[in-house]
Amino acid sequence: MALDNVLASIDANLDRSLERLFALLRIPSVSTDPSFAAECRRAADWLVTELGALGFDASVRPTRGHPMVVAHSREAGAGPRVLFYGHYDVQPPVPLEQWKTPPFEPRLVEENGRKQIVARGAADDKGQLMTFVEACRAFVAVEGKLPVPVTILFEGEEETGSPSLKPFLDANRKELKADVALVCDTDMWDAETPAVTTMLRGLVLEEVIVQGASHDLHSGLFGGPAVNAIHVLARVLAEIHGPDGRVAIPGFYEGVGELDPEIRAQWTSLKFDERRFLGDIGLTKPAGEAGRHILELMWARPTCDANGIIGGYTGEGSKTVIPARASAKVSFRLVGDQNPAAVRDNFRAFVRARLPADCKAEFISHGASPALRLPLTSPYLAKTRAALEAEFGRPAVLKGSGGSIPIVGSFKHDLGMDSLLVGFGLDDDRIHSPNEKYDLSSFRKGARSWARILAALAQ
Amino acid sequence: MALDNVLASIDANLDRSLERLFALLRIPSVSTDPSFAAECRRAADWLVTELGALGFDASVRPTRGHPMVVAHSREAGAGPRVLFYGHYDVQPPVPLEQWKTPPFEPRLVEENGRKQIVARGAADDKGQLMTFVEACRAFVAVEGKLPVPVTILFEGEEETGSPSLKPFLDANRKELKADVALVCDTDMWDAETPAVTTMLRGLVLEEVIVQGASHDLHSGLFGGPAVNAIHVLARVLAEIHGPDGRVAIPGFYEGVGELDPEIRAQWTSLKFDERRFLGDIGLTKPAGEAGRHILELMWARPTCDANGIIGGYTGEGSKTVIPARASAKVSFRLVGDQNPAAVRDNFRAFVRARLPADCKAEFISHGASPALRLPLTSPYLAKTRAALEAEFGRPAVLKGSGGSIPIVGSFKHDLGMDSLLVGFGLDDDRIHSPNEKYDLSSFRKGARSWARILAALAQ
Repeated sequence: MALDNVLASIDANLDRSLERLFALLRIPSVSTDPSFAAECRRAADWLVTELGALGFDASVRPTRGHPMVVAHSREAGAGPRVLFYGHYDVQPPVPLEQWKTPPFEPRLVEENGRKQIVARGAADDKGQLMTFVEACRAFVAVEGKLPVPVTILFEGEEETGSPSLKPFLDANRKELKADVALVCDTDMWDAETPAVTTMLRGLVLEEVIVQGASHDLHSGLFGGPAVNAIHVLARVLAEIHGPDGRVAIPGFYEGVGELDPEIRAQWTSLKFDERRFLGDIGLTKPAGEAGRHILELMWARPTCDANGIIGGYTGEGSKTVIPARASAKVSFRLVGDQNPAAVRDNFRAFVRARLPADCKAEFISHGASPALRLPLTSPYLAKTRAALEAEFGRPAVLKGSGGSIPIVGSFKHDLGMDSLLVGFGLDDDRIHSPNEKYDLSSFRKGARSWARILAALAQ
Repeated sequence: MALDNVLASIDANLDRSLERLFALLRIPSVSTDPSFAAECRRAADWLVTELGALGFDASVRPTRGHPMVVAHSREAGAGPRVLFYGHYDVQPPVPLEQWKTPPFEPRLVEENGRKQIVARGAADDKGQLMTFVEACRAFVAVEGKLPVPVTILFEGEEETGSPSLKPFLDANRKELKADVALVCDTDMWDAETPAVTTMLRGLVLEEVIVQGASHDLHSGLFGGPAVNAIHVLARVLAEIHGPDGRVAIPGFYEGVGELDPEIRAQWTSLKFDERRFLGDIGLTKPAGEAGRHILELMWARPTCDANGIIGGYTGEGSKTVIPARASAKVSFRLVGDQNPAAVRDNFRAFVRARLPADCKAEFISHGASPALRLPLTSPYLAKTRAALEAEFGRPAVLKGSGGSIPIVGSFKHDLGMDSLLVGFGLDDDRIHSPNEKYDLSSFRKGARSWARILAALAQ
């Protein structure tokens, strides 16, 4: 049987697949820092070369930011056209000193009996996107062509809120339109249980800079009458959350809605190990909104988190200064029908209403995207679930994700396409953190799963 | 008359005095950053060479931190021995980009019709200490000796809370004991009016580090149940001040006391230009405790200021991370009989009482010293006031200072010596801030004033 040969080819060539992934992981394609722009370009070029060698018509496509990679299969069976999406950019590796090995020198290590690929981007998203590339490679090697027509789209700005994505889709609508999108940037339920993600939180990224006096002041000579920008910013941040853990910004919960009782029952039945989950990150009790299941908090409730703060003297020792400026990066996770623009506007009004005399605030937007709920009636979902069950020997869980994948909204709203969110990450992958890893079994079974899914979609 | 010749010598040699000050200002003797230790040592060596050339028995004296400079006059008239104190260390020059010219390349510039020496340390304290050195130089040049026996003590850790000072005084008590101390690290009332400072605030320097999760987390995947160290720290900082501007830490106001009505009347009569004072720093309204005169807020009321804060991602763009750690540098200005150790302990208890589940706090002490009120009955004060009035043509104001000069407490408590706090800084000197300056007239009249004071003390 053809599929069996394809799966056997994936297994037989696993070492060489890993070598290719390591080559991609060695490129520090950090999209949030402009000084790494050339590395992002290098990652895009590398992917084009790889896809070209597989018989794709592949090219680097410029944007105002980091480039896109677009590739179309030249030879494929009949059947629905799929658009596969991934991103080649990665988060900054800071804090560097907490990495056990350098973030851009990938290694295969064994931990708790599991072989793991350790590097920045191993799981998010280079390891994941390469599962699909390796599945395609196996099909081409065994069959000479892909079972269904495939378009591949890799972007380089996912970690910065995908500013170029919507313009690019708008400008290339016809070329990119497919029958269904495949998106590989999500997790499994656990190391043995596959999952399809059907709910995604939205994201609003804001930066606020509070300015008080015209310059930093000596805290002895001016301490008392001089306003302190850190105090002002701290008070604003402190007031964002009420004692019940809810976000106190007026209008914030508009459009949130309560969870469907059936979904709630399903999630409760998953017997999620809250204690182990929190224990893995050094915690014992869930913070945030009181009285809600931890999966609901992560998948179906909105949040506000300060992602960074800086002001005044932060070097060695002490400096008796009253800082004139202090700034914070603040992000919101959205659910349901929350309107990103309204969330941003309400946040800014909330800050401005709390500025004392002589203080002003500037705001910088780093992106915004709404939440998404994907329809469970997609004709492609059943085939995907069956393919995953065949690979893992157990049914796929239908779950939510607290993270944001802006492209899924664009696929839906701009191209009229549903997305199948299938990924092989695990919740201990430490994405965005030091020592990010991707299980070798995720990589292997991921590639095998995509081979099965492509074959199933061709039926 | 001998004094007239000394004053004439100061004026005649002003350009060469400036050259010497510039040489000292070129040494980046930043005491708060260990990587500048060699520069601190170089500043100490430079001073020893200068004082040796003036006939002092001068030496660099090691401590556990930056060294002391001690110098004794070899030839002097009879009369009280004076101990002159200054510090050769300076604050870090950050933020560098706000300096119009490099901080360690001193320049003489003209602004608003005033010639100004611009450099880090120009006013705090290199320019000030050199006024005394130049006064001594003129006496030696004209008279061949000083009018009274002089010991000079320069330290290199004033900006870090003077950790080595007390051990050094304890170990060299006999050598350093004098009849009165002269301390030159304070301001004039204004550019035309000299001042003697008789009240000094104390200082407690703390650093607090809040730790939540074991590592930074993805704000999408973990946002909701994961505690955010920035939120916890922001809430603590926000709660330190009540809506009335008072510090809400229990026990904080123990020992503060109300201002003597006579002093209050004197300060009110000074017709302090609050509007101009605040306008110079970009403000219009005094912050802090409501209902108190601005001079009282700065000189006679305690404060708490966050001097720095940092946590999470603070680079370019955004990073959707829930930070595991956040830290702040916090300083307290003390007055009256406030106990520094009690203030520190109460602050730490205040923070600990506000830590939610799974959070802990570490504390680092960067120093502590009590407030000081100097007796107005010192037999040397009248002579000093008369000397200042002769130089400036108007009486000296007796004022307070919001800053801390720990040595004054040590002189009082360890050596049983009163200190005469006479300085020639101005409130627009931007000490601890970018573009620090010292008026050329402060430098010249400062040197002339010290010549007059030394002559008066010999009477």
